[in-house]
Amino acid sequence: MSDAPIGVFDSGVGGLTVLGALMAELPRERFIYLGDTARLPYGTKSRASVARYAAQSAEALMEYGPKCLVIACNTAAASSLPAIRERLHGVPVIGVIEPGAQAACEASLSGHIAVIATEGTVRGRAYEEAILRRRSGTRVTTLATQLFVALAEEGVCSGPIAQAVAEHYLAPLFGAGTDSPDTLVLGCTHFPMLTSAIRAVIPVPVSIVDSAATTAQELRQRLDSAGTASSSARGGVRFLATDAAERFARVGSRFLRRAIAPEDVEIIDL
Amino acid sequence: MSDAPIGVFDSGVGGLTVLGALMAELPRERFIYLGDTARLPYGTKSRASVARYAAQSAEALMEYGPKCLVIACNTAAASSLPAIRERLHGVPVIGVIEPGAQAACEASLSGHIAVIATEGTVRGRAYEEAILRRRSGTRVTTLATQLFVALAEEGVCSGPIAQAVAEHYLAPLFGAGTDSPDTLVLGCTHFPMLTSAIRAVIPVPVSIVDSAATTAQELRQRLDSAGTASSSARGGVRFLATDAAERFARVGSRFLRRAIAPEDVEIIDL
Repeated sequence: MSDAPIGVFDSGVGGLTVLGALMAELPRERFIYLGDTARLPYGTKSRASVARYAAQSAEALMEYGPKCLVIACNTAAASSLPAIRERLHGVPVIGVIEPGAQAACEASLSGHIAVIATEGTVRGRAYEEAILRRRSGTRVTTLATQLFVALAEEGVCSGPIAQAVAEHYLAPLFGAGTDSPDTLVLGCTHFPMLTSAIRAVIPVPVSIVDSAATTAQELRQRLDSAGTASSSARGGVRFLATDAAERFARVGSRFLRRAIAPEDVEIIDL
Repeated sequence: MSDAPIGVFDSGVGGLTVLGALMAELPRERFIYLGDTARLPYGTKSRASVARYAAQSAEALMEYGPKCLVIACNTAAASSLPAIRERLHGVPVIGVIEPGAQAACEASLSGHIAVIATEGTVRGRAYEEAILRRRSGTRVTTLATQLFVALAEEGVCSGPIAQAVAEHYLAPLFGAGTDSPDTLVLGCTHFPMLTSAIRAVIPVPVSIVDSAATTAQELRQRLDSAGTASSSARGGVRFLATDAAERFARVGSRFLRRAIAPEDVEIIDL
């Protein structure tokens, strides 16, 4: 089992920020990453549609005999984690919400946590629930910041546009005279691309939490405790997408911070 | 046949800017509008996927016995118009590209036309071809301005963000010292929402062409010449979508400039 790959899926390229953290934490593992680029984005779609798409992605990855699955998309994890766990009985499934909530609870001193995410994730309330389960009485403010997705995809991650958009969303939350949060969860895998722009418009000290690193730590613990960590000299990654290999490679290279060649992206049908 | 409805389809809500023009030009007609909100946006997907989705939308509308179909999405029209025409032999199909190209050729004095559109429309080169067929020797500059789609969807159509994005894309095209176009085609149905912001950053006189009005005129001519224009006292509209009725109604109301109730949006599966 230790030689089996780890399946990772997302609506598109955003989850590559999570994959990057997984590969850094577990360099001996083989990963298979599936981006559902034919149906992205999930963030503005209904819970039922996202759940159906996520189940199809999970099923597709099961064909590769993975030892573990990671749902590297907040919207999909928010809508589908329990259903997928039930469906794939026996294969551990990790989402990005629980590790992100855990990290936020550890980071916050004041007990006021803000979560920025897609419309779908905000509507699903999964972060509030995960945070309150760990630390009841926490004040959780959630905000849909949909334009950050488009900015990250277009590579407009710094400069006047990124700053203006960050200001637009975050000024009301962190402005003077507000009882502002001391912790900000980046509840969408696109948002770490904009961390600098986000930090630049927040005038108070704030811990910025993204769930990639904590998800990687959780995955390591799972593999260690199950005794299924890989003993290969070196790992690797294989890319699957449901559409548009060229765009996946071009935009994805920025998200993964390493070059992906279009010919290394295999197109599959779900 | 004159009592039959007119089918209109788009990847989502953008085509509602076209529907608005059709309803204004032809107030006695009944329209059925289908937004493929489960798979939007088309603008960043592959030509093959968009063609498949568009064919499915056209087939779904055929069940309502339409007298005419309008492809109110530039990306879909660019990839699929001839194939859909062939498939739906006997039912006239109008796209938004040809009327837009026609209007641009009529508007341009200098013979330098710029087209802003989605990545998919730009890649498909349909505007260049349609313009050059009408007026060879025209210089056509095309530019993908993907962020305009997200801004229009989020309702950020004026103010500092919209201006900064318009500046980002258009300054290189219309800046001092450039041989700038005298006509700008809004080659995506989302972009008319941003006309003021676009105009505000262009320092030279320019004709801004959107294909909604010319598509409406073409539809009127077709119906008149076929003798199939409606003689009802008043028309109407019915909304179909493939996902997320609440969002369709909320965002679509802005695009159509009239209120759409979520309960008036029927969800269908393609």
